[in-house]
Amino acid sequence: MTRLYHFALSPFCRKVRLVLAEKKIDVELVEERYWEPSTEFLRRNPAGKVPVLKIDGLMLSDSQAICEYVEETVPEPALMPKDAKSRAEVRRLCGWFDDKFHSEVTANLVYERVNKKIMRGGYPDGKAVKTGAQQIKFHLDYMAWLLDHRRWLAGDRMTLADFTAAAHLSCLDYISDVDWNRSEIVKDWYAKIKSRPAFRSILADQVPGFIQPPHYANLDF
Amino acid sequence: MTRLYHFALSPFCRKVRLVLAEKKIDVELVEERYWEPSTEFLRRNPAGKVPVLKIDGLMLSDSQAICEYVEETVPEPALMPKDAKSRAEVRRLCGWFDDKFHSEVTANLVYERVNKKIMRGGYPDGKAVKTGAQQIKFHLDYMAWLLDHRRWLAGDRMTLADFTAAAHLSCLDYISDVDWNRSEIVKDWYAKIKSRPAFRSILADQVPGFIQPPHYANLDF
Repeated sequence: MTRLYHFALSPFCRKVRLVLAEKKIDVELVEERYWEPSTEFLRRNPAGKVPVLKIDGLMLSDSQAICEYVEETVPEPALMPKDAKSRAEVRRLCGWFDDKFHSEVTANLVYERVNKKIMRGGYPDGKAVKTGAQQIKFHLDYMAWLLDHRRWLAGDRMTLADFTAAAHLSCLDYISDVDWNRSEIVKDWYAKIKSRPAFRSILADQVPGFIQPPHYANLDF
Repeated sequence: MTRLYHFALSPFCRKVRLVLAEKKIDVELVEERYWEPSTEFLRRNPAGKVPVLKIDGLMLSDSQAICEYVEETVPEPALMPKDAKSRAEVRRLCGWFDDKFHSEVTANLVYERVNKKIMRGGYPDGKAVKTGAQQIKFHLDYMAWLLDHRRWLAGDRMTLADFTAAAHLSCLDYISDVDWNRSEIVKDWYAKIKSRPAFRSILADQVPGFIQPPHYANLDF
């Protein structure tokens, strides 16, 4: 059985869940309170982070390494283009969201508002929240610029880059931190990806202490 | 002509330089003061980061995306194994160093001591430096544990994981922040990788205001 050790509002875990679902790989989800790491969890991943995927008798970690592994072992439906140039663009954008967007937006909003409360780490830092709310505008505008030139973020087909971006945005959307009125084109892109069957499990997530806003699981948001 | 926009003490740029040199791809190095980004630089990479590689008529960014591109287009000498399982291990360790090691060690030591001074960003934060000095011990011990089980970090052959780790450690070594006495096995690994022709350009780096320590370029350090 494939098993994913995860945390519901982790964008890195959501990215892996989306890829597994798109590839129709059944997975058992095991919630991991990674901020209280047990010896057993650290044995699975000495980095002390989620996601960790148990698959094919292996214990894999690092969301990008996991997604590339799944793509190589279950090639269809393809989430990476065939040519090196387009693959570089997909990976550049995965890095954009998992690194730049993550530190500038996700960490400032989701981690401050949600993770801190769950981990009993104190109140959100107002300065960080303000920075995140400011930074997301730049990122939404950059996405709009890309989508003005392409059907999907990295080109004319849906790729891992779209799932990576959607994983981050869905976490922010859970706490109503995405202004969907900022760009029609980004909203349309999110509506398309959100309506995929692969998204269902994510739209059903419930995080104790944080109630889903009504638009979150609504496909006509 | 292949051209790399870089900064000498950026571990991400060094990783790309090592890979290009190992693949015997001639490259023109152009120093980029990325913290004072020009419009032209932001056009090359809207993320405002180095490295940016101009190659095959393309403008590539994100060090991992660049290295995977180079591996796919110039396969020999191979820096990635052939099987998916081993590739996942290489990518996990690239992520380990570029994400975990970077935020826990490189950012706390190199960025505090060097980048802040160059960017006129004030004095090093003593608490950050102390944290970095503490954290590097854990990472050196983890490397020692890996190298006790394997010839190279990700397995029995040298891979991108070794170059990624060496890129970070070489930046720290430039400011004498690696205690090579902590582990004989890690020191031996670094001596092996440091003696490769690919490392020569990095050992010749000179950062104004920061003089190379005598052991830095010495192969018998």
